[in-house]
Amino acid sequence: MLYGTGAFLFFWREIMSFSITLPDGSKKDFDENLSIADLAHKIATSLGKAAVAGKVNGQIEPLDYELDSDAEVAIITDKDKEGLDVLRATAAFLFEAVAKAKYPKLHLGEHVTDEGGFYVDTDKDDQIKIGELPELEKAMEKAIKNGEKIEHVRVSKSDLEDEYKDDPYKSALLAKIDDDVVDAYKLGDFVDFGFDALLPNTGKIKHFKLLSVAGAYWGGKSSNPMLQRIFGTAFFKEADLKADLKRRQEIKERDHRTIGRDLDLFFVDPKVGAGLPYWMPKGATIRRVVERYIIDREVADGYQHVYTPVLMNLDAYKTSGHWAHYRDDMFPPMDMGDGEMLELRPMNCPSHIQIFKHHIRSYRDLPLRVAELGMMHRYEKSGALSGLQRVREMTLNDGHTFVALDQVQDEFAKILKLIMDVYKDFDITDYYFRLSYRDPKNTQKYFANDEMWERSQKMLKGAMDDLGLDYVEAEGEAAFYGPKLDIQTKTALGNDETMSTIQLDFMLPDRFGLTYVGKDGEEHRPVMIHRGIVGTMERFIAYLTEIYKGAFPTWLAPIQAEIIPVNNDAHGEYAEKVRQELAKRGFRAEVDNRNEKLGYKIRESQTQKVPYTLVLGDEEMKSNSVNVRRYGTDEEISKSLDDFINEIDADVKSYSRKN
Amino acid sequence: MLYGTGAFLFFWREIMSFSITLPDGSKKDFDENLSIADLAHKIATSLGKAAVAGKVNGQIEPLDYELDSDAEVAIITDKDKEGLDVLRATAAFLFEAVAKAKYPKLHLGEHVTDEGGFYVDTDKDDQIKIGELPELEKAMEKAIKNGEKIEHVRVSKSDLEDEYKDDPYKSALLAKIDDDVVDAYKLGDFVDFGFDALLPNTGKIKHFKLLSVAGAYWGGKSSNPMLQRIFGTAFFKEADLKADLKRRQEIKERDHRTIGRDLDLFFVDPKVGAGLPYWMPKGATIRRVVERYIIDREVADGYQHVYTPVLMNLDAYKTSGHWAHYRDDMFPPMDMGDGEMLELRPMNCPSHIQIFKHHIRSYRDLPLRVAELGMMHRYEKSGALSGLQRVREMTLNDGHTFVALDQVQDEFAKILKLIMDVYKDFDITDYYFRLSYRDPKNTQKYFANDEMWERSQKMLKGAMDDLGLDYVEAEGEAAFYGPKLDIQTKTALGNDETMSTIQLDFMLPDRFGLTYVGKDGEEHRPVMIHRGIVGTMERFIAYLTEIYKGAFPTWLAPIQAEIIPVNNDAHGEYAEKVRQELAKRGFRAEVDNRNEKLGYKIRESQTQKVPYTLVLGDEEMKSNSVNVRRYGTDEEISKSLDDFINEIDADVKSYSRKN
Repeated sequence: MLYGTGAFLFFWREIMSFSITLPDGSKKDFDENLSIADLAHKIATSLGKAAVAGKVNGQIEPLDYELDSDAEVAIITDKDKEGLDVLRATAAFLFEAVAKAKYPKLHLGEHVTDEGGFYVDTDKDDQIKIGELPELEKAMEKAIKNGEKIEHVRVSKSDLEDEYKDDPYKSALLAKIDDDVVDAYKLGDFVDFGFDALLPNTGKIKHFKLLSVAGAYWGGKSSNPMLQRIFGTAFFKEADLKADLKRRQEIKERDHRTIGRDLDLFFVDPKVGAGLPYWMPKGATIRRVVERYIIDREVADGYQHVYTPVLMNLDAYKTSGHWAHYRDDMFPPMDMGDGEMLELRPMNCPSHIQIFKHHIRSYRDLPLRVAELGMMHRYEKSGALSGLQRVREMTLNDGHTFVALDQVQDEFAKILKLIMDVYKDFDITDYYFRLSYRDPKNTQKYFANDEMWERSQKMLKGAMDDLGLDYVEAEGEAAFYGPKLDIQTKTALGNDETMSTIQLDFMLPDRFGLTYVGKDGEEHRPVMIHRGIVGTMERFIAYLTEIYKGAFPTWLAPIQAEIIPVNNDAHGEYAEKVRQELAKRGFRAEVDNRNEKLGYKIRESQTQKVPYTLVLGDEEMKSNSVNVRRYGTDEEISKSLDDFINEIDADVKSYSRKN
Repeated sequence: MLYGTGAFLFFWREIMSFSITLPDGSKKDFDENLSIADLAHKIATSLGKAAVAGKVNGQIEPLDYELDSDAEVAIITDKDKEGLDVLRATAAFLFEAVAKAKYPKLHLGEHVTDEGGFYVDTDKDDQIKIGELPELEKAMEKAIKNGEKIEHVRVSKSDLEDEYKDDPYKSALLAKIDDDVVDAYKLGDFVDFGFDALLPNTGKIKHFKLLSVAGAYWGGKSSNPMLQRIFGTAFFKEADLKADLKRRQEIKERDHRTIGRDLDLFFVDPKVGAGLPYWMPKGATIRRVVERYIIDREVADGYQHVYTPVLMNLDAYKTSGHWAHYRDDMFPPMDMGDGEMLELRPMNCPSHIQIFKHHIRSYRDLPLRVAELGMMHRYEKSGALSGLQRVREMTLNDGHTFVALDQVQDEFAKILKLIMDVYKDFDITDYYFRLSYRDPKNTQKYFANDEMWERSQKMLKGAMDDLGLDYVEAEGEAAFYGPKLDIQTKTALGNDETMSTIQLDFMLPDRFGLTYVGKDGEEHRPVMIHRGIVGTMERFIAYLTEIYKGAFPTWLAPIQAEIIPVNNDAHGEYAEKVRQELAKRGFRAEVDNRNEKLGYKIRESQTQKVPYTLVLGDEEMKSNSVNVRRYGTDEEISKSLDDFINEIDADVKSYSRKN
């Protein structure tokens, strides 16, 4: 920075000797100013060639940056993470230049580089569409081939203001700069600012790719205009780019949004409701199977399933404390007249407390296990919404068990066993346990009941140890109201996600005045255990879609068997008979009797990832058999219809587990 | 009425002859005025004794009403419906008098007689409670025994205004009277008005009963104060009163609210949300069985079940016309920011339209059958809410099929067949069909498409005739958007209720611009069929509770088998083994191992209307058998556990049908 904030100062530069300290601690003295490029060349010719920028006293600077006083300097090369940033910033700059050349009225928002690559926010009357990227890529390639010079200039802020006077976003970005002279870069007529360092020539970019387009609010605020964010990436080596694109493709193939569209599982249309998914028949079938599975599992484990309203008097959330601490995440209350304010519930706990309170409870009723597929509504910012993973309306596999304090360990272990059993059925294997305690140095931050905390933390740990499970312990990570166990899984995008949780709660029973009559005839306060086995239907099915890559195991698959007659006229009737036999036994089968070629239908059944494809011709019809192809294999096996029914039955009943 | 509205007129009465026409057409001439009582006596001494009032030119008048000019007169006796009204009005009046004597500060609202009896609205600081009725009854009985005179008086309105100046309700009722002189009745100091005719003496009331107490808003408006409505009834004969009380008891025993409480099926607590039921575990189990049944039934019938959000952008309801025509029944919209207004849906049609619109549809996709257990919210006045029957949050067994016009008849017949099959499984037999057409003389009142109306009405009728079903035809009863079939059942209270409906809709496909590509490659407009099989879960289960009187058939019963060990210590383990065997096969059984007497447990199992009570002692344990009592019989039958499992299995699989 040459000029101070607000004030205008003159500097007299004196020629004097100065000393550059390199990363290995060695020092070099110089009498004359020199650029970072010069320094690199002086250290080693190879370093000179590899240099893309420098780090001067911790600050990234371009190759032409002039060193003139004592400094710690590191040369950044194409091997460094920061080097990749410089390359990607240069690619972003070049993208801007060609986009602006192609669409002269284009406005430009922020440009950012990150671990994944770069993005540039753009705005024009008819927003840039994905189909326009190849042409923009071509223009970039041409500039790269021509090896055009990128000039580092220092421009007065007012000149830049003039340059960008028609662009509201650039003007706003400029307004944030306090200096009167701004570092900027020029490529032909195009000029932009806000870069730490760029490469001096477009020819250096070489291996890049424009990736995708997505809407993004200006400044991240949903009240601002929506811009088009263009994503791209760049690498120094072609092999790195290829590997990155391949990895992206894999993530995309796992992405539940992509699979959800390809397999027609669900959609979200912000015009009818942001974050409010519509489950198409196939997605709904998967969800229904999961819902019935989890309810039956819980009922068998002693849970009492209920239905409670999605609306509740706001007063209940004032009592629970949600309204005081959680209001921003709640929907606006509705005035129903008669002084009644109704609220879409953000949690099911107060509803299940109503179930507990509806009768006088005795120690004989405990543990009382109340469960529900409880629909809830949470206000997420529209920018945070994503497919089934981040939504505003969700249905939680929720449960609350009310226990006496001395029952905590057994009940905790029982819940944990249920979770492990369920994971086994869904073939969920990549997870770890995290046990969260209160901070022992800061106990006043938590609900005040030392006995409850001490005993219950011991019981949780004891249960984990009894079950021989490994776990991470996190002191100070407990909720205000009690200790908890979280079970953490990973999404396709590599994000940590809490799948299941068991949380003790000492506070709500207190706030709602819950009691049970003990053996001693006295009233006692129960402990409440919040627990979720598979979380919300939305997030769980997004997760399953990703771990299975859309190839749902037979018991979950929306279509379990695709029946294809070799010839519709000759074998259509037999195909329908097979379908009915399967349907009668509760299997989901459909006949593909469209007027398409056999090969096409078989391929489509594979694309749709149907577990069993049954091809039926003369042979099969004659012998009441089916020709079976399992998804993912090329093998065709002929077997009697009865044998096939036994096979698919065993498959479904075993949750398609291999062992 | 002696005085004209608003004006004050004098009449000079001249003595002249006049003629009374009796109901049989005979005439009697009189020279002198005479009362209705006199007339009755003149006709026949027995009629004089039986007379309770008269009808003069169609107007009910008391016995002391003076006849002085030509008139048609009928004598009302204790045999007539109007006679019962006079008796009940007299009982209401007497109730008011004794209540006012007991609580001098009591305010009185409206008094009404109807088919069921009478009611009086009352208001005091601590409202009249049901427990206070016996004492009030005693005071009435005393007055009846004393045979006190009820005086018919004509009082100036201002005198009455003075009398009731502290009673806001009576004052308001008086203010509605335009006459300056008002017909009123006196009993001692108590005076009231607004009766057609009362009996002249309390001694005539004899057989009466105060029945119940319920809250009722003044003027029926929920913004007004809540009064206590006291219900009672009266009859001329003791036998009639007894029969009526018995019938009331039966209705009460069928009332799903009573059964719901006794069997712990559900509750509603206006403090946490008026009209928002909580389904307790047993009620939830019944609902879950019904939900799974109906979904499986529909899926087998070609429906595609979906899940769609309960919230939608308000714009969709503007497009559909619901916001314009139905706003009063909708919940208040929620402002989500970003210009988004969200609305709790009052109907599922626009949601299913989104499913249709999500893909380009062709004639090959039709009929497209979209179904859902769709939660909806409708704003009912709090006074109209009742148990599960009238609620604000409900889940509808909803479905929409999209068809080409020429598919209407087949699809209609298919839906109808599904409905009949479902009725059979639930043993619903008391219903009739009502086919509603547009008014042929007033076709401009309806959605304009003559061809659609003509063809589709013919197709509906044709389908009914083909199926050989009887039906009522109702011209002019169609919806604006299309003809429909309603299937009407009766509630325990005798009210007509639409259970199922099939409604054609020409309008919504038009409003939402729905199209499908026909065989001809052109775009065509589909017809939408709204259909409900069992209505909302809330209303349907209220209905089932009433028709079964809480004795749910085995396949629906929340507990199918109650297992009672003769001795908990000796037979508890075997009881648990039997429970597990049953649970393994999907039956809902529980062991009653409380420390209660055997007889008590067996009686309680009957009170809870459990289909099978299994008593297990030494004998059963030795031979791996069970001792079975079917609900409603005293028979005990011993059989092997396997035989019992076969029995209950057949029972459930046949939906407990007798044939």
